[in-house]
Parts: sequence; C-alpha cells; structure tokens
Amino acid sequence: MLAQPVLSQLEQIVGKDNILTSKMDMVAYSYDATADMPKQTPDVVVFPQSSGMVQAIVNLAREHKVPIYSRGAGTNLSGGAVPVKKGIVLSFQKMNKIINIDPDNLSAVVEPGVIIGALNAAVAPHGLIYPPDPGTVATATMGGSAAENSGGLRGLKYGVTKNYIMGMEVVLANGEKVRFGGKTVKNVTAYDFANLFVGSEGTLGIITEITAKLIPAPKFRRTLVGTFKTLADAGNTVSGIIAAKVIPATMEIMDNMTLRTVENSAKIGLPTDVEAMLLIEVDGMSEDVVTAEAEAVKEAVIKNNGTLSVAESDKERDDLWAARRNALPALAQLNNTVILEDATVPRSHITDMLIACQDIGKKYNLTLGTFGHAGDGNLHPTILCDKNNKDEMERMHKAVDEIFAAALSFGGTLSGEHGIGMAKMKYLKDEIGESGVELMRSLKAALDPDSILNPGKMVPAPAEA
Amino acid sequence: MLAQPVLSQLEQIVGKDNILTSKMDMVAYSYDATADMPKQTPDVVVFPQSSGMVQAIVNLAREHKVPIYSRGAGTNLSGGAVPVKKGIVLSFQKMNKIINIDPDNLSAVVEPGVIIGALNAAVAPHGLIYPPDPGTVATATMGGSAAENSGGLRGLKYGVTKNYIMGMEVVLANGEKVRFGGKTVKNVTAYDFANLFVGSEGTLGIITEITAKLIPAPKFRRTLVGTFKTLADAGNTVSGIIAAKVIPATMEIMDNMTLRTVENSAKIGLPTDVEAMLLIEVDGMSEDVVTAEAEAVKEAVIKNNGTLSVAESDKERDDLWAARRNALPALAQLNNTVILEDATVPRSHITDMLIACQDIGKKYNLTLGTFGHAGDGNLHPTILCDKNNKDEMERMHKAVDEIFAAALSFGGTLSGEHGIGMAKMKYLKDEIGESGVELMRSLKAALDPDSILNPGKMVPAPAEA
Repeated sequence: MLAQPVLSQLEQIVGKDNILTSKMDMVAYSYDATADMPKQTPDVVVFPQSSGMVQAIVNLAREHKVPIYSRGAGTNLSGGAVPVKKGIVLSFQKMNKIINIDPDNLSAVVEPGVIIGALNAAVAPHGLIYPPDPGTVATATMGGSAAENSGGLRGLKYGVTKNYIMGMEVVLANGEKVRFGGKTVKNVTAYDFANLFVGSEGTLGIITEITAKLIPAPKFRRTLVGTFKTLADAGNTVSGIIAAKVIPATMEIMDNMTLRTVENSAKIGLPTDVEAMLLIEVDGMSEDVVTAEAEAVKEAVIKNNGTLSVAESDKERDDLWAARRNALPALAQLNNTVILEDATVPRSHITDMLIACQDIGKKYNLTLGTFGHAGDGNLHPTILCDKNNKDEMERMHKAVDEIFAAALSFGGTLSGEHGIGMAKMKYLKDEIGESGVELMRSLKAALDPDSILNPGKMVPAPAEA
Repeated sequence: MLAQPVLSQLEQIVGKDNILTSKMDMVAYSYDATADMPKQTPDVVVFPQSSGMVQAIVNLAREHKVPIYSRGAGTNLSGGAVPVKKGIVLSFQKMNKIINIDPDNLSAVVEPGVIIGALNAAVAPHGLIYPPDPGTVATATMGGSAAENSGGLRGLKYGVTKNYIMGMEVVLANGEKVRFGGKTVKNVTAYDFANLFVGSEGTLGIITEITAKLIPAPKFRRTLVGTFKTLADAGNTVSGIIAAKVIPATMEIMDNMTLRTVENSAKIGLPTDVEAMLLIEVDGMSEDVVTAEAEAVKEAVIKNNGTLSVAESDKERDDLWAARRNALPALAQLNNTVILEDATVPRSHITDMLIACQDIGKKYNLTLGTFGHAGDGNLHPTILCDKNNKDEMERMHKAVDEIFAAALSFGGTLSGEHGIGMAKMKYLKDEIGESGVELMRSLKAALDPDSILNPGKMVPAPAEA
C-alpha cells in the first residue's frame, strides 16, 4: 500500500480527475488479455497528460522505490501489463493526441495513447497507411504496440512495428527525457535507442512520443482462399508462393480445429472437412501486378492439390477476414481458458510445426487448434482448457513446453509478436542462452538500476533463469 | 607496445600466418577512409578464422586491458576503424565465407568478412538481392556495414542495413558468445540486440556471424535525369514525386560544383550550366508499374521547370550511375583533403539544406559541392581543402560546425550513414542532449566495462561531452 503522502503528491502531479484508487478500479487494472497469469491489483492508477507529468511521476516513484507499469489498452498477451509487484499503473489513455501528420515526410507524430486504428483513419485521407496491424488494431495503442513490437497479419510483406518507428521521446528511470531519431529516413547518430525501446516491454524506459513511418496505401488487392486435404499441401503452397517471388500482404492459415470452431460460431460457410485453409491477399499499386500475383497464388494452390476460390465482392472478402479475425474469439467461447501461443518458425518449417502442434495436442489429449500468419512462420497454437481442471492444466503446461521446444528445434523463436512478459521468461535461456540472459540483466541494471520499470517482466531474476 | 608474451599468445590463437607485427604493416592499418583524422599504428593485426578464435582474443585482451578494433575493409568515413589507442586490430578478412543461402526463407548466413558485392553476386542466380548498397559495395564487408548501419543509394525505397539484419552472433567484451534473432520474419524474444549491435560501431561487441534478409530482385527499371536552373526546382521535384506516391529506388542529386568536377574528370557529357541534376531510378516487378512511375517522375520534373532525359540503353544508364558513383573520387582529385559529410534532413527540407550548404561554402570561401541521396534527405556536402593550408582548414572546421547546426535546425541528424566514430562525437549532445549522451555511457559501461572495444569512438568521455 502506498503511503498517503505519495498518493497526494501523485494527485498533485496529475490532478484529481486523473487518478484512481478505489478497490473496484484497481481490480479493473489487475490483469491484461493473457490467460493463466497471476492477477494483482495496483495501488493507484494515474493518467498523465504530458511527458513532464510522466517525468514527475517517475521521479516520485524512484524516490520511494515504487514500481511503475506503463499501460496502453491492456491487450497484452504475455502478462506484460499486470502490476505484479503492486505500485503505480501509468495509463496513457489521456495522452492520445495525433500531434501531426506530415505527408511530405511520410510520417506522423503521436502520443502513446493513440489507438492504431485511429492513426490509420487519420492518415487515410492522405492516401497513406501505418502498416503494422496486430489483431487488436481497433483498441491497442501506439505506445503499447511499440513497447511490445507488435506484429500482425501484414508482417510478411510490410514488416512489424519496429520497421515503422522512426523516432521517439522516452522518459528514463532516472527521470531524464531523451529524444532519438526523427523524421529522417536515415539516422545513425548514437546507438539505435529507438529500436532498443521498441520491444522492451516498458522495462527500460517509458515511451512518451512516437514518430511513425507511413507508406502510400496500396490501390488494388485480391483475396483468395485455398483449402487443403493435408497440412503438407498447405505448407508447400506457402513455400511455392514465395518461390514464385510473390510476397502477399497476408497469408493466413487456419487448421481443421480452428475452421470447425469458427464456422460453428459464425456460420459463414467455411469448409469443415479440410485439414487447412489458406487465406491470401495480394495487394499493390498496379492492377496488372496484383492480377499477376493472384495468378501465381492460384497456380501454387492448384499445384499443391488445393481447392481454390476467389473473393468476388467486397462482402465476400470482408466475411473471410471477419472469419479469420474471429478465430480467437470463437475458440475462446469453447472453454474458460484460452492459451494462445505465438511460437514462430522459419517459413520453410511451417508444415513441420503445424504437424508438431497437432501431435502435441493429441499426445496430451488437449483441444488444440492452430491458426496464424503462415507467410512469416508466425503460428498461434491455441489450447482450450478448463482452469478448474487441474489435470488438464498440467497437461496444457507440458504441451506448451513441447511447443516451444519444437519451435526452437526448427530454428524458430519463443515469441513472434506477443513478447516475453511473465509468460515466457522461463524459456528465455533456451533461445538466447545463459549469456544472453546475463546480457539482458546487464542492460536492465544499467538503464533501470532500482528496477522500478515494469519489474518482474521480460528479464528473469537470477534465481528464475 | 604489447608485451612479447601477449603477442606469442595471440600467435598461438590465430597461427603464425594470421598475425602481422611489422612496422610497415602497422602503418597500413593506422587509418581508414576518413580525411582529417588522427592516424595511429596498432601494435598487432590478427586475422581470426572462427568465432572461437575471436573469443580467445577478447579474453586475452581483457586480461591485459588491451584495446581491440574490429575491422572490415577500412572504408569507414568517421574515423571508426582507426586504432587510436593502439592495441589489436582484429581483421575479418579471413572470415569471409557465405555459410548458406536459403531462398525458401529469403535469407543468407554469412561471416563478417564477406564483401557486400560478393553476397549479391552469390544470391543473384536465385533471383534475389541484398538491397543495402553503400557507395563501397565492391569492397566494404557485411560486418563493417552492419557495425556502421550503412545506408547507400537505395535507402529511400529499400531501407538501410538494419532493415536487412535478421540475426547475428556476437562475441561480447566478457568473452561470451551470444546469438540473437535468426531466420524468422518475426522475433520479439529478448531485447532487440541484433538492432542494438547494428550501428554500434564495434563499441559494444564483435559481430562474428550475420543472418541477412534477401528480397526478390526487381525485374524492371527505368532511369531518368532531370536538370534544373535552381536548387528549389530540384527540391520541389523530389517532394512532388513523393506526393505522387511514387517511391523511386534511387533519387540522387548533384549540385553544379559536383557536376562540373565529375564532368571535368569523366567527360561523359554531364550538363555543367545547371544548378542541380537529379538522377532517378524507378524499379519493380511489373513493366507497367515501372512505366507509370516513370511517367509520374517525368511530370514532376517538367512541372518544376526541369529538363528531362531518359536513359535509352543500358550503356546510357550505366554511364549515368558511373558518373554518380564517380562524384566522390572526382572531387577528391581536386585537392589533398576531401571532407565528406552526411548531414541528413527530413525530405521536405532538402532545398533549405542545399541552399544552406551553398551559403556556408560561400561564407567561408571554400570549394564546397553537395551531392547525395535526395530521396531520403541524406546529403553529402563535400569540402575540398588543402591540409597544409592552416587558415583554410580552420575555415573548413567552422563550416562543418555550421552544416551540422543547419541540419539539426531543420529537424535532421548529424549522420545519416557514416556514423559518429571520432569525427562527430563532439556534436553528439547537440542532437541527443546531455541525457542521451549519458545514456550512451551507461550502455557502454554495462556491456564493455573495461572499455576494450573500439575505445575512443562514438561514446564521448565525460570531459569531451
């Protein structure tokens, strides 16, 4: 519990309309979107409205050794936003201004609380887009997605969040405010701090402003669907498309389990008797190229024994994408606990990984469906279980261990886009080794010596490693 | 001077054919491609052939507190490769194997000594390219360009080196070997160390292996030239092209001074009576798109009072690019000292910056030509002077100070692609502030507590800041 004088000082900093302390409010900030994570209420939630306020809060917190948890919309999927050691939740909900949109320099400057979808809506009249698109674009914030280096559906062709962060302002644990990068396309002045803070999950500094890169919006698109009797056929189609030098904007896969669940919930006529479906969209500036790319996709589907269909109208396209975006919510309806992983493998191992996930699900007698971003090898093996069934939860944990081991055995990674947070700290050394974990500790200690920034996340304490 | 036992141990590590100690050899490693920098001979040059050897060298160096300078081809343009505090030059010339090319995962794994051009030659039969192309592609190494986060001509459309480094192996100052990233398109496991070591100029760790991203080679291209009577017309053309949502592969500018000098040296019929020339190349997968983009470029040139010509043959194109690539060598013939800067501004301020450079040249009565990558605002104001003329060298230093101040006043950066090295340390705080410099010191101290990795570079000592 925070001492009353500290609470009073916080209220002085942000004003009395920008601070929450009631028990009920604290419960609302005790968790994020991750299943099977510890919950913890914070002592207080504050809503700063300027980087100066953030500095004052950090200085106060450091003085009293109180943890600070930066928070966007709480859509985190690795427990990163849970105030696990109590203290101050610093919500960016009220720092949500688009500071400027600069079409000449293909960039925009935003406060961290701006919702990704809101930025895209604001730049659309200029014919521009901000490409990163995690599944939660409609609610997730720029600050949160920068802190997590969010991925999403368009990663294959357009890259991930870090590829679109040109500069930022950060408040450090020592209370200093620093700016890096800016609106130049090239910048090699100093270490690449902007990229270091991207993906650091709020453990190294607090992002208070972002300069984001925009690109011209593609003018044409074509959406195609391939269904397959085997996972191998689907996997080979993905490789075949890339081998044809076509990089689709999105190339999503849903396995049989996912298809049956989504169809059962959405009733849009998805096939339920196939092993896998690929949902592929090609886009670009020229109708001819997009048509040629769609042809190459068709050929790859057919060559690999797939059944092809093409979205003939915007409604058909939108239904298909709604089905894909509905995969997680639909699976979530089946049981009270949805374990959504993001084990990621090099594209050439997608079939291996899909089969491994299926086998692991069978081995542990679990309801396991896999969907995800096939084009970039970023799969979401998803396990549905009952948190009240102790035996099932134990089997789930063993299955998750094996899923990560499989991903690493294929040259993959623990996390393609959800981050380490609390959920994956124990696996970290399996990927980057004890020396890599030690390097993380050195860096964390250098930038946040009192460990006040999102403690208990991302960097395993020596005993946990 | 290194003690004989240390030299013997180094020889034991790398073998007697992989160590140089003669005075003449040391002179050859006492400088890099940067003008007006201190020269310093090292004590010894070693050529390791494995990361294990690099670890052994680092352990020995740390034990004896001897500095280590990683070196690729020595094409550095900010004094980064000069062994300024004596010690060991660690040359990667003999670690130059392409370990694998993986078309399925659009990637290649290389040792740091691989020359950029050699990688491109090796991946060309697969229809792939490694896009980063600093002016020195024919000699610069993958390790050196990763350490410097090199830019080049194609930065506008294709990005810079950091956008193509998917993973790496690094030997740390404590002798540990760490691997980060890999062949997955997405990876948010741990801090983004790969990006941190990219651009860290050998001051944080020694890169011993790189996983590089490749992309399908564009199939069509069109090369156009616009000449202009004013710098403003040229600058407005650049903005006009971007406003038309065309992102050329390259968009190079040469001012009158540069044109006259190159023409004088190369005799290829460059115009010498115009204020600026833009050399623009559009490329892509479709002839139609490339043609449409070329049309948009033409329109922008004509709308801004330019005179247009189009390369009609490969020879014409090659001559034009040879002229551009010849800009620096041609300027270098005019005097004994070529100060090549890389002040970079947001694209919308190119005209302002070109004019500022011209004015500064006149103010200090210097021979100053500007060329560079107009599309990404990365200009190379280049001053020709005589190192034996003390007065001129003093005027040059004042002019350089003003060039950087101008770039920063336009929201730009000290260095777009050459790095900080020794050349720009004193300006660092003007861009990132004292708090940013302090952050660099913390990071350097955390990763290299004994300061054995490329000391005297990039991170100003407290007295220098």
